[in-house]
Amino acid sequence: MFLKNTWYVACTAAELQEKPLGRQICGERIVFYRALDNKVAAVEDFCPHRGAPLSLGYVCEGKLVCGYHGLEMGCDGKTIAMPGQRVRGFPAIRSFAVVERFGFIWVWPGGVNLSDPGKIPHLDWYDNPEWAYGGGFFYINCDYRLMVDNLMDLTHETYVHSSSIGQKEIDEVPCQTVVEGDLVTTSRHMTNIMAPPFWKMALRGNKLADDIPVDRWQICRFTPPSNVMIEVGVAHAGNGGYDAAPEHKVGSVVVDFITPETETSILYFWGMARKFNPTDAALTDSIREGQRKIFSEDLQMLELQQRNLLAHPDRALLKLNIDAGGVQSRKVLDRLLEEERAAAIALAPGNPS
Amino acid sequence: MFLKNTWYVACTAAELQEKPLGRQICGERIVFYRALDNKVAAVEDFCPHRGAPLSLGYVCEGKLVCGYHGLEMGCDGKTIAMPGQRVRGFPAIRSFAVVERFGFIWVWPGGVNLSDPGKIPHLDWYDNPEWAYGGGFFYINCDYRLMVDNLMDLTHETYVHSSSIGQKEIDEVPCQTVVEGDLVTTSRHMTNIMAPPFWKMALRGNKLADDIPVDRWQICRFTPPSNVMIEVGVAHAGNGGYDAAPEHKVGSVVVDFITPETETSILYFWGMARKFNPTDAALTDSIREGQRKIFSEDLQMLELQQRNLLAHPDRALLKLNIDAGGVQSRKVLDRLLEEERAAAIALAPGNPS
Amino acid sequence: MFLKNTWYVACTAAELQEKPLGRQICGERIVFYRALDNKVAAVEDFCPHRGAPLSLGYVCEGKLVCGYHGLEMGCDGKTIAMPGQRVRGFPAIRSFAVVERFGFIWVWPGGVNLSDPGKIPHLDWYDNPEWAYGGGFFYINCDYRLMVDNLMDLTHETYVHSSSIGQKEIDEVPCQTVVEGDLVTTSRHMTNIMAPPFWKMALRGNKLADDIPVDRWQICRFTPPSNVMIEVGVAHAGNGGYDAAPEHKVGSVVVDFITPETETSILYFWGMARKFNPTDAALTDSIREGQRKIFSEDLQMLELQQRNLLAHPDRALLKLNIDAGGVQSRKVLDRLLEEERAAAIALAPGNPS
Repeated sequence: MFLKNTWYVACTAAELQEKPLGRQICGERIVFYRALDNKVAAVEDFCPHRGAPLSLGYVCEGKLVCGYHGLEMGCDGKTIAMPGQRVRGFPAIRSFAVVERFGFIWVWPGGVNLSDPGKIPHLDWYDNPEWAYGGGFFYINCDYRLMVDNLMDLTHETYVHSSSIGQKEIDEVPCQTVVEGDLVTTSRHMTNIMAPPFWKMALRGNKLADDIPVDRWQICRFTPPSNVMIEVGVAHAGNGGYDAAPEHKVGSVVVDFITPETETSILYFWGMARKFNPTDAALTDSIREGQRKIFSEDLQMLELQQRNLLAHPDRALLKLNIDAGGVQSRKVLDRLLEEERAAAIALAPGNPS
Repeated sequence: MFLKNTWYVACTAAELQEKPLGRQICGERIVFYRALDNKVAAVEDFCPHRGAPLSLGYVCEGKLVCGYHGLEMGCDGKTIAMPGQRVRGFPAIRSFAVVERFGFIWVWPGGVNLSDPGKIPHLDWYDNPEWAYGGGFFYINCDYRLMVDNLMDLTHETYVHSSSIGQKEIDEVPCQTVVEGDLVTTSRHMTNIMAPPFWKMALRGNKLADDIPVDRWQICRFTPPSNVMIEVGVAHAGNGGYDAAPEHKVGSVVVDFITPETETSILYFWGMARKFNPTDAALTDSIREGQRKIFSEDLQMLELQQRNLLAHPDRALLKLNIDAGGVQSRKVLDRLLEEERAAAIALAPGNPS
Repeated sequence: MFLKNTWYVACTAAELQEKPLGRQICGERIVFYRALDNKVAAVEDFCPHRGAPLSLGYVCEGKLVCGYHGLEMGCDGKTIAMPGQRVRGFPAIRSFAVVERFGFIWVWPGGVNLSDPGKIPHLDWYDNPEWAYGGGFFYINCDYRLMVDNLMDLTHETYVHSSSIGQKEIDEVPCQTVVEGDLVTTSRHMTNIMAPPFWKMALRGNKLADDIPVDRWQICRFTPPSNVMIEVGVAHAGNGGYDAAPEHKVGSVVVDFITPETETSILYFWGMARKFNPTDAALTDSIREGQRKIFSEDLQMLELQQRNLLAHPDRALLKLNIDAGGVQSRKVLDRLLEEERAAAIALAPGNPS
């Protein structure tokens, strides 16, 4: 169960170069490529001639050429040409709305005519000298909602990430969850604690003392379909915490774009955007590697949790206060899924309109 | 089709240390751990909070702690505590009767209330200065009964293990199979033959000549659910064979505990207990390595036999005299499975009692 | 859907030495071995005793001996002997007609009584001093008919094999497809073109200039069940092309025997027979390695095409003029499959005859 009429990250802009790229998004095999003037395009990864995967082909003068028999495919899913053939009667394949923006390639797996680039989330830090960004990518065999749950309940840091960002105080300080329309926010503010290793590293990276008490915050924001942005940071204690002046704190945004591949697998694009010391490329690298190590600790847990849930589909899981972020996010998703389902029925041929 | 109300070896005592251990036994995913005072415990490998595998957690002060969000599980499957939560209403998970004895951890996959530690088979050689023991472990993709068949018909040694313990005379001397209650015994006594390589090694290990004729015996004993103990040995010929005085013979017990993982996979715990030269640790090692090599020769045969049987479920296999041990063992199993089934119906809610 | 009453290549003669060889052919697991006087034999890879794979056994005095308990199997699928057993009542297993000829082992997966060695295709080049032959073998996860399509439409060379045998002119020159009974022939003749790299190498191998225009031909011949022989070559332009005198040309036959393993996997035996410079073993090697590299370029395309077709079983593929070779070959197959089906019904017990 995925939302289809929405934007998902398909790949980073840097992943898509001269060669076409085949990815499965919400169950659809799609080939992405750069057409004329570097404009991104996306069509079904299925040649209408004999079913070959177009992603094994190449791009020539902005046209996607099938690597099997040379059929030239257009961005709209219509065959442009094929050596020695008249192609007018060739069946079209699906094309997908796709946009390059903010360093990512965004795809809309639903109807092209429903797509609206204005709905792509705005990423403040992109191409902004006040910010630095680093990120990476994992394949994980789990339902995308298990990853949303994970990111909307950071008490797991205490256990899964005990040597880096976890600390007992996360468990001890309750979180607040607020729903405003499609936005779900879960916040936790800890005061007068010692920073865990990752944040000590970040404090030093911003030339701040790492051995005195700090205030720490975590503000998780879910927006559909499965984007979770988490403001995180620490400030030297007693300077206002989250609202402290820049010279007292280090803060950043954990960026999570979760793209369902199938019902039980995801493409997970993670990263961190920070507003301190943005020109320090070595710091960007060390944060990225720290984050890669931390996020890799979740993989086995999520995949074996998924295995357990598939083996026991009948079991109702608990919905505790710490789970409120995930629970509310799923409620937003359920409402939107129902709206999408209803809209599809209304649009179906033969329906009175 | 496995017996559930019976004891199976889950792991060796040495395998279970500080970290919890997840294993699948008779289709159930179970986590084993050492609670207070090193006492072993076993519960479902499924956290009642969000379905995470408890085996990825850790043990703290005798409590199993979920590695995802810190839920503390008790030996009885009831949640003890969770940071910031009242746990009284949490659903319980299954707990399993489990006993550490004779160097193994034994689990009873059926009802805890039906479990009886008195039914764990007694292992004479454990912690006994007259005996030495060495063993190992394999995963094999086959029905546990194929392994019982294998061990209750040692004519296969002539073919599968021709370079170590096999010899033509095994085929030539008929075996006798006797059933007494749940015990099935298949015996073969060969007289005045030359010892095969493994037994020459053992003779030398006991400082006996290896180049003169011997009498050789094999006495396989099956007991439910799937334990096969095989008395094996050779004596210098003419001294009474199996009954010869200790100075004329080398004898040992091949130990086989077969634990069904699924319908078509097993945990296979094998070993050898010997009553000669028990303090010679180097001999224990060389016997263990010899046995590992020998038993690994069975793996491919059993797995491809299983593949063949799955592809031809309709074919009736032959039941020859050499198969009597396996055939009788399956009859015992079938009777006990039927008893277990009948008892489960009698106990079912709504049944007149 | 495979033809069963026909000959398939099971392995090369060189592959079958002292040890039995287990292969799956048209869904049947078969063990091949050399019986008395090196005569090949083939029976089900299933021991009638306990279902063990006979291919794990060995051959002794022309008899296939089961490696589990020593049952001796005859070429006709009847048990000959077993230590300590009377075998007269043992159920027979299927035996298969099998012939060693032209360097290959040929098997007839259908009824033995219907088999006719006279229907094995004649291979001119075998054991013929005017010819040299080299070849190899791949497993590929695709329907055998996708490989037939591939070989009966060589326009794919332009795309899949662009650096070796592909060239634009293949696309530009139309092919002719002719059906004569069960034989489907697709031909293409290109005149006054430059030879692509593979053929330049072959020209030099035959001491001919590689930098002047040539005429090039491709004559693909499909015969059931799935054999494709392709006459290919180049001649210095203006000497009659395909009909040029030997001193002006290099020509060879691409040999393709495609044996279905399952509905979606094949054993693919490929090779090249050439009539020039036959004693140059180094040339044979370099052609074989060139061909191996070229044919390996098809593997991923065929396997992902198969994946796409399995995901979209409802989609009708295009049948263009370039596809005529494959389309006609499938028509021949469909007709023969229908004949085989009708014959099976007529022969079925209980049918009026």
